[in-house]
Amino acid sequence: MKDSERPIGIFDSGLGGLTVFKSLRALLPGENLVYFGDTARVPYGTKSAQAVIAFSKEITAFLLERRIKLLVVACNTASSLALDEIRKLSPVPVLGVILPGVEAALKAVPAGGRVLVTGTSATVNSRAYSKALAAAGARVKVLEKACPLFVPLVEEGWCSKPVAAIVAREYLAPFRGRKVDALILGCTHYPLLKKVIAAVMGPRTRIVDSARVTAACAKADLERRGLLNRGRKGSSEFIVSDAPERFSGLALRLLGIKTGKVAVKRF
Amino acid sequence: MKDSERPIGIFDSGLGGLTVFKSLRALLPGENLVYFGDTARVPYGTKSAQAVIAFSKEITAFLLERRIKLLVVACNTASSLALDEIRKLSPVPVLGVILPGVEAALKAVPAGGRVLVTGTSATVNSRAYSKALAAAGARVKVLEKACPLFVPLVEEGWCSKPVAAIVAREYLAPFRGRKVDALILGCTHYPLLKKVIAAVMGPRTRIVDSARVTAACAKADLERRGLLNRGRKGSSEFIVSDAPERFSGLALRLLGIKTGKVAVKRF
Repeated sequence: MKDSERPIGIFDSGLGGLTVFKSLRALLPGENLVYFGDTARVPYGTKSAQAVIAFSKEITAFLLERRIKLLVVACNTASSLALDEIRKLSPVPVLGVILPGVEAALKAVPAGGRVLVTGTSATVNSRAYSKALAAAGARVKVLEKACPLFVPLVEEGWCSKPVAAIVAREYLAPFRGRKVDALILGCTHYPLLKKVIAAVMGPRTRIVDSARVTAACAKADLERRGLLNRGRKGSSEFIVSDAPERFSGLALRLLGIKTGKVAVKRF
Repeated sequence: MKDSERPIGIFDSGLGGLTVFKSLRALLPGENLVYFGDTARVPYGTKSAQAVIAFSKEITAFLLERRIKLLVVACNTASSLALDEIRKLSPVPVLGVILPGVEAALKAVPAGGRVLVTGTSATVNSRAYSKALAAAGARVKVLEKACPLFVPLVEEGWCSKPVAAIVAREYLAPFRGRKVDALILGCTHYPLLKKVIAAVMGPRTRIVDSARVTAACAKADLERRGLLNRGRKGSSEFIVSDAPERFSGLALRLLGIKTGKVAVKRF
């Protein structure tokens, strides 16, 4: 196998990372993709840093056995809490979803403007976005809001029901009048609620979907290292730690992704 | 240690089983109680039978090391899917929450009446309640409805917010006109939503809370075996597999339970 034909590994706590998968597939049609969803332990967003790090290391080791050429951590919680530990383990580059989101947000926000970061409790408590924005030298005001019900709402397939709008208002209405220039969808599930979130925030607020930006970063990395696979149709493989049929059904229903047979790897 | 002083073991996927703990504590003030919440892998309700059985066996083995005299499986999903496997492992009696709930429901429903079972997807898909009702020779019509958003709603502490009523209506309004005599709260989290659920169903429907009935069954079992602890104030011990502070905070906020220091056991 040529080095360029080695797969890109992608993982998430469940199916939210499929928004990143979908962007990667659209941008890089020739790449072979291996997706791992930790459905036995989903969600990560309410768990401790120690647990998220331990789970992420297990999955990284598993994906490295598949001879991946790049690892995309398509989970904001794992990106917030475990990226350093994952990098210690990985001989190939590791791409999280925080930095690409931060860079996209900064393009949308003037100096002195306001960014609202939404995410799971674990992501928000880690303050990973605030730190990354500060490290990027951004002169913006950062607001943060944990929205723990968004993930189960998406997993229930209720994104376009009225209840989704009510939950979004419960979390976000207090920020509506506060001149928010950009809202970062700081969880890979949230792009599925993008319309509902945009409706609460109003047209003034730019909604930043890090799935797309992350895919662009992956492409740039592979180009830089001469590892782009220019084939016509790459393979897609899906592995979960539990309940493959449920994963497969939701992938189709929520994202229109036909997974084919989903394999199971239990830890 | 006298046999009667050995603790009662209780476990759940997270904090829902604390509704059972609370009933046990009220009914059996002299008993020593050890509660285990599998907060690293919560929720169980969307996971496969195989995963729930594996998790339940690990926890059972752990609690047996504590020399418990009775094991209460305070989780409907584990009771639905794993009770037989747990019993194979346990030299002490194992009490689930399904049968006590069924018996209480049958007292509330006339022959030919209707019972609506609510629970997680895993509990409903297992049809454990239908089977138990049939095995009890009940001549009732059983309706079932999975309500996956109830657990995260409770864990968010939103039980008395308007959004709780909206979610409850989304799931249950279609059953309102269908002459339901009893609704079984088939998940140990659901008693925290009892008022909201009762309001949707109307006064005609009796709401069956299996936490209380389960505690009564535990008492009856200990009396029968001469193992009741008639002391004045039993100890309460809490162990979780992740995030002890979060567990402790929610136990106080949602159930008024002061846990003291919560220990951690990771698997």
